[in-house]
Amino acid sequence: MDKVRILGIGGSLRRGSFSKGLLLEAKKLAPENIDFEIWEDYNFPPYNPDIEIPQNVKEFKDKIKNADALLFSIPEYNYSVPGFIKNAIDWASRPYGDNSFEDKAAAIMSESTGTTAGSKAQYHLRQIFVFLNIHVLNKPEFMVPNASGKFDKEGNLTDEETKAKILPFLNALAEWAKRLK
Amino acid sequence: MDKVRILGIGGSLRRGSFSKGLLLEAKKLAPENIDFEIWEDYNFPPYNPDIEIPQNVKEFKDKIKNADALLFSIPEYNYSVPGFIKNAIDWASRPYGDNSFEDKAAAIMSESTGTTAGSKAQYHLRQIFVFLNIHVLNKPEFMVPNASGKFDKEGNLTDEETKAKILPFLNALAEWAKRLK
Amino acid sequence: MDKVRILGIGGSLRRGSFSKGLLLEAKKLAPENIDFEIWEDYNFPPYNPDIEIPQNVKEFKDKIKNADALLFSIPEYNYSVPGFIKNAIDWASRPYGDNSFEDKAAAIMSESTGTTAGSKAQYHLRQIFVFLNIHVLNKPEFMVPNASGKFDKEGNLTDEETKAKILPFLNALAEWAKRLK
Amino acid sequence: MDKVRILGIGGSLRRGSFSKGLLLEAKKLAPENIDFEIWEDYNFPPYNPDIEIPQNVKEFKDKIKNADALLFSIPEYNYSVPGFIKNAIDWASRPYGDNSFEDKAAAIMSESTGTTAGSKAQYHLRQIFVFLNIHVLNKPEFMVPNASGKFDKEGNLTDEETKAKILPFLNALAEWAKRLK
Repeated sequence: MDKVRILGIGGSLRRGSFSKGLLLEAKKLAPENIDFEIWEDYNFPPYNPDIEIPQNVKEFKDKIKNADALLFSIPEYNYSVPGFIKNAIDWASRPYGDNSFEDKAAAIMSESTGTTAGSKAQYHLRQIFVFLNIHVLNKPEFMVPNASGKFDKEGNLTDEETKAKILPFLNALAEWAKRLK
Repeated sequence: MDKVRILGIGGSLRRGSFSKGLLLEAKKLAPENIDFEIWEDYNFPPYNPDIEIPQNVKEFKDKIKNADALLFSIPEYNYSVPGFIKNAIDWASRPYGDNSFEDKAAAIMSESTGTTAGSKAQYHLRQIFVFLNIHVLNKPEFMVPNASGKFDKEGNLTDEETKAKILPFLNALAEWAKRLK
Repeated sequence: MDKVRILGIGGSLRRGSFSKGLLLEAKKLAPENIDFEIWEDYNFPPYNPDIEIPQNVKEFKDKIKNADALLFSIPEYNYSVPGFIKNAIDWASRPYGDNSFEDKAAAIMSESTGTTAGSKAQYHLRQIFVFLNIHVLNKPEFMVPNASGKFDKEGNLTDEETKAKILPFLNALAEWAKRLK
Repeated sequence: MDKVRILGIGGSLRRGSFSKGLLLEAKKLAPENIDFEIWEDYNFPPYNPDIEIPQNVKEFKDKIKNADALLFSIPEYNYSVPGFIKNAIDWASRPYGDNSFEDKAAAIMSESTGTTAGSKAQYHLRQIFVFLNIHVLNKPEFMVPNASGKFDKEGNLTDEETKAKILPFLNALAEWAKRLK
C-alpha cells in the first residue's frame, strides 16, 4: 500500500459549513502518500428498499469501496448524527449482503458552536460503525469546540491551533489503515 | 384535556413495513379519549438551513405542535435511528427558536427481525429527545423482537401477544401526557 | 408539597473533589423551600445479590425513598459514570421489586477538566435512569467544562459564572418534581 | 506471537453467575494456541486517587498488561455495565499515564434473562474502550438472550447452540489480536 486513499464524507449542506471546511483543509494538507477525495453529493431520497438504487448511491458505494480509509466530518444535529448523513450511510450499507463499509478503517472529526464539540454525534456514529464493521481510530480524537470563531464566512478553517492538528490526524488514520491491512 | 391527541411518527417506507404496522394497529385500537393520527410524508430534502422550509415540513411542524403527545415507531437501521426519520426530526426542530417538539410528551415503539428489537435505535432517540426537550415515557418499553413472524405481508400486526400490549401502551402515554400538563 | 426534599448523590472521593464541590454549593444556595441533603458514604462492597444488604445500603435506600428529587453530581471516569457510583446505584435498585429510585424526579450535574464537561457520563446515566424509572430534567443541562480553574484546592466552587447557574438549576429541579406530582 | 494470551474479565459475583459461566466455558474450550486465564478478584475499594493503589489492583494491572487480548464477559445491570466491573476498570486505567489497557485487543460477551441480551451494557463498554484505547472486535458479536434456561444452577453453560459459538469467537479474537500486532 504505497498511497493511502482516503475518502472524506460529511459536512453540512449550508454555505460556509464548518465540518465541510475541515474536509477541505484536510484535502489541502494531505501529504504525498495520501490521496484525499471528498464526496459531495448527499441528495439521496429517503432510504427505501423497494425503490431502485439511485445512480448517485451507486457511485457513492463505489467510492467507499475503493477507499482504504474513510474520514467522516460531521456537525452535531440534535445530539446525534445529521439525518441526511445517516440516510447516506443507510443507503451505502445496502442492499443486504453488499455493505460498502465492510472492514474499512475510519476516523471522525466533529465541531460545534458549543463546548461539547459534537462528541455526542461521534459516539452515535461509533455505535453505527459496529454494525457496519468499520474499524474506527480511537486516538487522537478530533473535536472542534466553539467553532464559530475558528472559520471564516466561506467556511475556511482559520484557527491555527486546529489547523495544526489536521496533518497528524490524517497520518494517524493512514497508519491505522496500514496496521489493519 | 378531555381528548388526548397523539401523533404517530415513523414507520419505514417499504411496503409492508412492520413499524408502520404498529402505528396502524395503534390507530385502530385507540380508545374514545384518544385522537390518533399518523404522519405519512417523509419526502423531505436533506436538511439545509439555507433553503426555504418546504411546505410539507411546515405541515409536519404544525401537526407536531397541535399534538398532546407523540408516538414514534421506528425500525433500527445500522444500530441507530433511520436517517430519513432523523432528517425529518432535524427539519421539525428548526429554524432556531422554533423547535416544534418543545416540552412534548412522547413514547417509542421499535421492532427488529433480531432479538434486540430495535433497542439501540430507541436509546439514540432518547438522547436526541433531551436536546428537543421531549419528555419520553420510561415504562413500559415497547419493543418487538423477532418481528418477521408477527406481521403479515401487508405489514398488519398478527401476533396476539404484541397486539395485547398496544392499548395499555397508548393509555400509559396518554396518562403521561396528562401528568405533565 | 410545601418543601421539596432533594438528595444530593455523587462527588468523587478525592480530597477537593469538584463534583462534590458542586453539591456543597447547591446545599449552601438552597432556598427556603428546598431541603437539601448530601449522601456521603459510598463505601459499599461490590454488588452481590448473595450477601446480606449492608446497613449503609439500607440507609442509602431510605434516604432516596424519602427524597422528592435527586441531584446527581458526577465526574466522568473513562467516558462513563464512575464505577463506584454505578455500584451504589446497583445496590439501591435492589433487591428485585424494591427499586428505591422508582418514579423519582432527578437532575444531573457534571464537570471535567476538558471541554466536553462530563457529558458522556451524563448520557450513560440517562440510559440507566430509564431502567430505574427516574424522570430526569431535560433543560437546563448543567455541565462544567475546564473545571480545574473553577474550584479552589479544597474543592469549593469559586467561579462566579458557574455559581450563578446553581440556584436556577435547583429551582428547575424543584419545579420538575412538583410538575410530576 | 505463537500463543495468544487472553485474559478473561468479568462475571457477576453471585453463585452460578451466567457471565462467569461463559468465561469458564471459554477457558475449557480454548485451543492449543490460546492461553486463557480468568481474573477472579473484584474486591477493590471505591476508586480514590488519594489512597495507595491496593495490592490486588497492581496484580490486576500486571495481568492485563501481560495479555495479548482481553475477553470481557458481563451481565447488564440497570441498562449499563455493572458498577463493580466499571470500578475495576477505573482502577486499572490509573494512575494517570499508566493505563493498563493501552492499545489492547478485546472482545465482549454478555447475557441477560431478557431478549436484549446485555447489548446496552456492551455499547456502554465500547464507549469506555475509546478512552482506554482498547480495540474491540466488531464481528461477531456475542450476546446470550433468555439466559435463564441456558445454564445450570452452578452457572455451567448447558445450551449447545451457545456453546458452539464460543470457539469461533475465541478464534476471531485471537485473529484480531494478531492483525493488530
